Amino acid sequence: MSRLFMFEKPLGMRDTLPELYETKNRVRSVISEEMKKWGYQFIETPTLEYYETVGSASAILDQQLFKLLDQQGHTLVLRPDMTAPIARVAASKLLKEDLPLRLAYSANVYRAQQREGGRPAEFEQIGVECIADETVSADGEVIALMTSALSEVGLQEFQISVGHIGFVQELFLQILGTEERAQALTKFLYEKNYVGYREHVKSLALSSIDKQRLLDFLKLRGGEEVIEFAFEITENEPGKKALHELKQLWNIIVDYGMETKLKFDLTLVSHMSYYTGILFEVYADQVGFPIGNGGRYDLLLQKFGKNTGATGFALHLDRLLEALGELVEKNPIHCIIFSDERRREAFQLAKEKRAEGIKVVLQDINGVKNVDGCTSQYDDISFLIGKAGRGPAE
Amino acid sequence: MSRLFMFEKPLGMRDTLPELYETKNRVRSVISEEMKKWGYQFIETPTLEYYETVGSASAILDQQLFKLLDQQGHTLVLRPDMTAPIARVAASKLLKEDLPLRLAYSANVYRAQQREGGRPAEFEQIGVECIADETVSADGEVIALMTSALSEVGLQEFQISVGHIGFVQELFLQILGTEERAQALTKFLYEKNYVGYREHVKSLALSSIDKQRLLDFLKLRGGEEVIEFAFEITENEPGKKALHELKQLWNIIVDYGMETKLKFDLTLVSHMSYYTGILFEVYADQVGFPIGNGGRYDLLLQKFGKNTGATGFALHLDRLLEALGELVEKNPIHCIIFSDERRREAFQLAKEKRAEGIKVVLQDINGVKNVDGCTSQYDDISFLIGKAGRGPAE
Repeated sequence: MSRLFMFEKPLGMRDTLPELYETKNRVRSVISEEMKKWGYQFIETPTLEYYETVGSASAILDQQLFKLLDQQGHTLVLRPDMTAPIARVAASKLLKEDLPLRLAYSANVYRAQQREGGRPAEFEQIGVECIADETVSADGEVIALMTSALSEVGLQEFQISVGHIGFVQELFLQILGTEERAQALTKFLYEKNYVGYREHVKSLALSSIDKQRLLDFLKLRGGEEVIEFAFEITENEPGKKALHELKQLWNIIVDYGMETKLKFDLTLVSHMSYYTGILFEVYADQVGFPIGNGGRYDLLLQKFGKNTGATGFALHLDRLLEALGELVEKNPIHCIIFSDERRREAFQLAKEKRAEGIKVVLQDINGVKNVDGCTSQYDDISFLIGKAGRGPAE
Repeated sequence: MSRLFMFEKPLGMRDTLPELYETKNRVRSVISEEMKKWGYQFIETPTLEYYETVGSASAILDQQLFKLLDQQGHTLVLRPDMTAPIARVAASKLLKEDLPLRLAYSANVYRAQQREGGRPAEFEQIGVECIADETVSADGEVIALMTSALSEVGLQEFQISVGHIGFVQELFLQILGTEERAQALTKFLYEKNYVGYREHVKSLALSSIDKQRLLDFLKLRGGEEVIEFAFEITENEPGKKALHELKQLWNIIVDYGMETKLKFDLTLVSHMSYYTGILFEVYADQVGFPIGNGGRYDLLLQKFGKNTGATGFALHLDRLLEALGELVEKNPIHCIIFSDERRREAFQLAKEKRAEGIKVVLQDINGVKNVDGCTSQYDDISFLIGKAGRGPAE
């Protein structure tokens, strides 16, 4: 192979070395345990799916999909998220009489990168989907579970922003009249470009009252009181229904005792186009991107033949690790260096120590070119070399 | 999407549902713990690698590789095994002064399937690589670790077949004279087609003594005594060196107290073309394919610029589960069905039970269309519905 490529990995692909691996493992395990305690059951789906089945149902941009052809000529994709595959499994195998179904996953997902920019092309998500329960209680449950899991794993400072995509769509449609205009304005929200949003609103041919409503909309971020303000700029019933859902959600989160973690942000929209109702993002101090997000998607299951709603969240494991900051402490490893004469004794000693839970490397001295270099890697060393030493009492 | 594709997965791709998921999880966890106790450190490598780097270094047939083009026009592969990626990471980042390095992994690998035949296109391997230790002790260690891990996980009946690729190559080359002829005969061993082997031998233009040696070779399967027989049909030094290694290996395994699990099979060869020395397969009762395999590969690291040897093994997790036979018992789940009035009480009860380690589903009764169907899914039910009941003492 050419020297150029010898050590290279594809754009956005990374190795995970032992310390980070063990840290990820610990965090994944704590979060999984919490999900299981809440009655969620883990499943695994294939890395590759048909483009026509899952690729097109996912909300990820087509250009971000890793695509390939199988030997039968079908287009496959590396799964870009887990929500669409889980909807496929739920609809085809697990949903019985539309009974609520609680599923969990931890899996790598894949997003092709256009150019080197530090964004990973493969990253792990751990999340849940609560399927076929259309109550606000289900939305409240996934937010509460996410909060509980983050607390269990030791994350102190985080904040959940909650919005409602139905509210935004209704308000914009009501004021602007057409889907197209509503989408043009929504785009500024995706980009969190509020200056652009204001300028765009000012340029629109609207009454000054409507312009003011669109500008006031940007202020709908904060505590419980935001919902009352929002009612004031909302005139139609679907918009009010969305606000009632948010109010109900607040009361549920209060009953969970978790309201200090929650803020409303009614300007929140998502690049995940399948959301239909309450949606949310979770931010931790000092991490620039959300460490997780979720929301209600009541139309996705229809693509798999089931007319039922669902809600869920996914945590971005690497970003969560960044927020947690510290790596787990490396467990000490004991090294027993032996020669042939005392091999059996070395094996016995290793066996005993391992049975006590101690990590033991057994190293034949003939396999080591540099004994000092070797021993410096370990926390504790025993030499069992040459003729067995005998104590004076023997 | 078309109905045809609605629920379909690509050829050889599978979903893992909750019970199997938890069983895999338990088995993976027991084996990982054993590997860590022996001082092996886990790493993770990307699912996608450059074809030029890892795809061509792997021993998997080109037509079994899943290939795709990235947006820069490079050919990528889904990793077909973990040995080549680990060699890449070891050579580029972890090997220091050629000190022995012990790495472990559990990861899915990918092999494209030509037609439906029950073979998985994605499956999990859990394994170790002991790098830069060229002693037979290292070969013995990985065999002993594999044995210990299988015992820990509860597998009662299994057998390890050990051979030496160097011995086969030397014997065939010595008798047949050319690499080409040696390879033609080796092909029958790959296929375990011993009838074909015998007929091929009989058809060769060889002395009757040499023919007999090649036929006697097939008998070299059994216990320690096989090595002595093998010495009798071996004339050159490299062949004898290989046999001395096997004898040494036997003594090491005796010192581990694991010799009852080991049989020699000097006819063992592998489709993994990178093996250079001692190699082995492990079989369990009633599973038609080996549940794991491994061996020494002393030339692979050279492809990544390091002139050092290595040995390792991989267990095929799904086959191991098949050998183990039973799924883990499903943990009971308690379901609390609540209505709005008693929501807070329900949340409190769930919190208390979860703190005791009990799995609890919280279910808003408004989210359930069929209460009987819902409750029948759970092992234990509480109803917290309507006005709170008061005990007579209050």
